[in-house]
Amino acid sequence: MIEYRNLRIALLGGGSVGAQVAAQLQQHGDELAQRSGAGLELIGVAVRDVTAARTPEIPQHLLTTDAESLILSADIVIELMGGIEPARTYILQAINSGADVITANKALLATHGPELFDAAEQVGAQLYYEAAVGGAIPIIRPLRDSLAGDRVERILGIVNGTTNFILDRMDTTGESLEDALATATALGYAEADPTADVEGHDAAQKAAILASLAFHTTVPLADVYCEGITKITRAQVESARKGGYVIKLLAVCERLVDPITGVAGVSARVHPALVPLAHPLAAVHGANNAVFLTAEAAGNLMFYGAGAGGRETASAVLGDVVSAARRHVIGGPGVAESTHADLPVLSISSVTTRYQITLAVVDQPGVLAEIASIFSDHEVSVEAVAQSVGEPVAGVVGAGIGTATSAEIGSESPQGTATLVIGTHEASEADLAATVAALKSSDVVRAIVSVLRVEGL
Amino acid sequence: MIEYRNLRIALLGGGSVGAQVAAQLQQHGDELAQRSGAGLELIGVAVRDVTAARTPEIPQHLLTTDAESLILSADIVIELMGGIEPARTYILQAINSGADVITANKALLATHGPELFDAAEQVGAQLYYEAAVGGAIPIIRPLRDSLAGDRVERILGIVNGTTNFILDRMDTTGESLEDALATATALGYAEADPTADVEGHDAAQKAAILASLAFHTTVPLADVYCEGITKITRAQVESARKGGYVIKLLAVCERLVDPITGVAGVSARVHPALVPLAHPLAAVHGANNAVFLTAEAAGNLMFYGAGAGGRETASAVLGDVVSAARRHVIGGPGVAESTHADLPVLSISSVTTRYQITLAVVDQPGVLAEIASIFSDHEVSVEAVAQSVGEPVAGVVGAGIGTATSAEIGSESPQGTATLVIGTHEASEADLAATVAALKSSDVVRAIVSVLRVEGL
Repeated sequence: MIEYRNLRIALLGGGSVGAQVAAQLQQHGDELAQRSGAGLELIGVAVRDVTAARTPEIPQHLLTTDAESLILSADIVIELMGGIEPARTYILQAINSGADVITANKALLATHGPELFDAAEQVGAQLYYEAAVGGAIPIIRPLRDSLAGDRVERILGIVNGTTNFILDRMDTTGESLEDALATATALGYAEADPTADVEGHDAAQKAAILASLAFHTTVPLADVYCEGITKITRAQVESARKGGYVIKLLAVCERLVDPITGVAGVSARVHPALVPLAHPLAAVHGANNAVFLTAEAAGNLMFYGAGAGGRETASAVLGDVVSAARRHVIGGPGVAESTHADLPVLSISSVTTRYQITLAVVDQPGVLAEIASIFSDHEVSVEAVAQSVGEPVAGVVGAGIGTATSAEIGSESPQGTATLVIGTHEASEADLAATVAALKSSDVVRAIVSVLRVEGL
Repeated sequence: MIEYRNLRIALLGGGSVGAQVAAQLQQHGDELAQRSGAGLELIGVAVRDVTAARTPEIPQHLLTTDAESLILSADIVIELMGGIEPARTYILQAINSGADVITANKALLATHGPELFDAAEQVGAQLYYEAAVGGAIPIIRPLRDSLAGDRVERILGIVNGTTNFILDRMDTTGESLEDALATATALGYAEADPTADVEGHDAAQKAAILASLAFHTTVPLADVYCEGITKITRAQVESARKGGYVIKLLAVCERLVDPITGVAGVSARVHPALVPLAHPLAAVHGANNAVFLTAEAAGNLMFYGAGAGGRETASAVLGDVVSAARRHVIGGPGVAESTHADLPVLSISSVTTRYQITLAVVDQPGVLAEIASIFSDHEVSVEAVAQSVGEPVAGVVGAGIGTATSAEIGSESPQGTATLVIGTHEASEADLAATVAALKSSDVVRAIVSVLRVEGL
C-alpha cells in the first residue's frame, strides 16, 4: 500500500453539485488518490443550514456553517455556492491562506475574474474552473492548453441548457414560449426564477469567460451584448424551420475589425440567432450544450455534452480536484492566466453579420421599392425577399427564394397588410440599426415583427 | 519588452505536419512566447533529404541530416517522422538528454508507449502526444485531465479520416469501395499505399492509446481486435441506410465483464459497425473524426473536428509546445502517465454487442425454423428478421420490421435462393462466432453474406 501525502479538501456549498462532489469524493476517493498521487480528504462542507435535506445525503459530521474556519484548514477549496458574495471573499481568503481554489461560479468569474486571478498569481495559487462553462464538457483546458499554439477566430456556443431546452421544445412540439418554460420548470431544467437563463445573463457570463480565455484578453461582462429569448414566438420558430433554420440562443465570441474605425479587436455577444439546419449546432437538442469553435490552423472543432446537472458538473469539478492535487504533489507555481494579447473589446456596433427582418407593411403597389431603397440608403444589401399577404405569421427566406417585385405585391388587397421577410447579406450592426430606425418611421411599415441575426452560414 | 528564457526546439521530420509546425513557430513565435513565458527558438529540422521540396518551405539553414546532434542541443524535441525506428531511438536519446518530447507518432506510442513513458518518468521529462489521436481535436488532455475525476465507461471513435471519407462517399454518392478509395487518393485523403488505413491498423493504434489513457491501464496494440473496411460492399451500405443505419469504422474501447469467467476488464476493438442514423457519430462526414465518450458522471460527450491534415495536426503539436515550454519555465517534474488501474485487457471474445447477419439461404419451407434453432441453440436471441426472395442485395432490420414466419418463406421458388437479414439482441462474440460456424455448416445456408456489429443503440 502506497502512502500518499494527504490533501485536505473544503467544500463550500451543499446544493445539487456540492452533494454530488461530496458523494463521489467519498465513493471514488481511492481511485482519485491513485490518479492524483495524493490522498484526498474531504474535511467539511460549509452550508447555510445543516438541517436541510440533500440528495445524495452528506454525512452530518461534515456539515458546518463556519466557512471561514474550514477554509483556513484546507489545501484545496471547492466553491460551489454561486453568487458574488460571500463567494468572492471566501475565495480570496482561500487563496491568501495558500490553498488552490476550484469554482463553478461563472457569475463571479465574469465580473471579478481578473481580481481573483491576480490574487492567485501573487501567491502562486491556482484557480480552476472547468465546471463554470458547459457543465461536464471539457472546454476550459482545450482552450487554455490544447489550443494554446493556435489562434481562435470564432466561437459559437450553446451554453445555456434551459433556453436550449425551451427553444428545442418550441421547435419540436410546437409549444409556446410560456408552455415550454413551464415544461422546463416541471422537469427541473429551469429554476423557480428563470430570469438569468431566459434573459441571456447566464450565457453572457459564460461568453465573457470563453472570450477572455480564447483571445488572451480580459473581456468584461459589461462589454458582452446580451439579448434573451423572451421575445421569441412560436411563429418565428415555425417560420425559421420553413426557411431551413432553427433558432438557438448563441454566445458568439469573435475577432473582428471595426468597419468604421478599422480597430482590430474582439467581441462577445449573446442573442437568439437563426442557425442553418445543416450546421452541427442545429442538432444540439434538449438541455445539451455545445461549443463550436474555429481556429486558424485547427479549423472547425465542436465540443458537445450535458451542460448542467449536479452529477455532470461534479465530473468537471473532480477533474479539477485531480489537477490541483497533482500540482500540490509536484510543487511549483501553476500556470498564470494569459491575458497578454490585451486586445480592444469592441461593442456590438462593430459586429458584421447577416440578418432576417420580418415586416408588416401596407399592402399596395410600390411598397417593396420603398422598403428596398431604405435598405440601400443605409448600405445594407438585400439577399432575398419573400412576401405573403395578410398578418405576419409565417415567412421564409433563403437562397432558393426569388425576389418579389413591387408589381407582385398587394395587387389584391390594397388597404390590407402584407408580410415581408427580408434576408440581408453581411451588414454592420450600426447600418442595420439605422435601417431599422428608418423602417420604423416609414409610412408603409405597419410593424417591425422581428429582427434576427443569422449565424453559422 | 520582457526578456524570456529561451527554449531551443528541435524538429525531427519535415513532412506536411513538420513543415507547418516550422512555419507557424516562425510566424507566431512572439505570440507563443507570450503564452509560454519562454522564447521559442527553432534550432533545426532533421530530414532525410535537405534538397527535397517542401510546402510551406523550410529555410535551408535550418535543415540538417544530423538528427542526433540536433537532439543533444534541444530543450524540446518534436518528433514527426513516424514509424518505429529511428523515431524510438531518437525519442529515448532526447529524453535521456533531459529534453521534453512531443510526438504525433501513434504507431510508436501504441507499440512502445510504456517504454517511452517509463524512460521519461525516470528522468522527470514529459512526453506530449495530443496530435497522435484525432489530429487537431483536443482529446488527450480532456481524457487525461478533465475526466481524471470521472470514470470513462465507453468510447466510440471515428479516428481514421481516410476510411470515414470512403464509407461516407459510398453512402452519399453510391460509389463502390474501389471508386471511393480512388477518389480519396485523388483528393489526398488516402496515401499511395492505403493498407494501414483501410485494414484498420491506424485506427487500432489510436484505440490502444485512447483505451490506455481512459482506463489507466496499458492496452497493448496486440490486444486490439482489428478488422478493416475492405470487405464492405455498396450493397451493405445501401442496405444499412434502408434499415436506418450508416456503416462507420469504429474504435470501441470499453469496460466490460467477461460473460463466462466473470473477469472485469477492458477491451479495445476496431471494426466496421452499423451506427443508427440518429446517433451523433452518423453525422460525421468526409475525412472528419469524432470521439463519442460515455463517463459515469459526465454522461455522453462528443469531440469533433479535422482528424488529419498538416495544418490541423500542427495546431495540436504547437499546443503541446506551449505546455512543454510552460513546464520548463515552472520547473519540477511533470505528470506521470497513470496506469495505476492495471485492469485485465480482455479479448474480443469477451465483448457483448448486437449483430446484423445477412444470409443467402435455400428458398424452401422450414428454412427459417432451422436457422432460428441454430441461433437459439447458441443462446443468441433474435430481435428481428427480414427476408426477400433472390440473391442477397438489400435487406434491412430494425425495430419496425416484423418477423417473417417460415411459412412465408420460399413458397414461390423452392429451388431458388432467399436472403435473410437477422438482427440480434446483445450476444457475446463467442456465442456469435459459434452461431456463425454452425450456420456455415448448415445445409440450408448457401452463403454468409455479412456479419456486422451494431453500436450506439
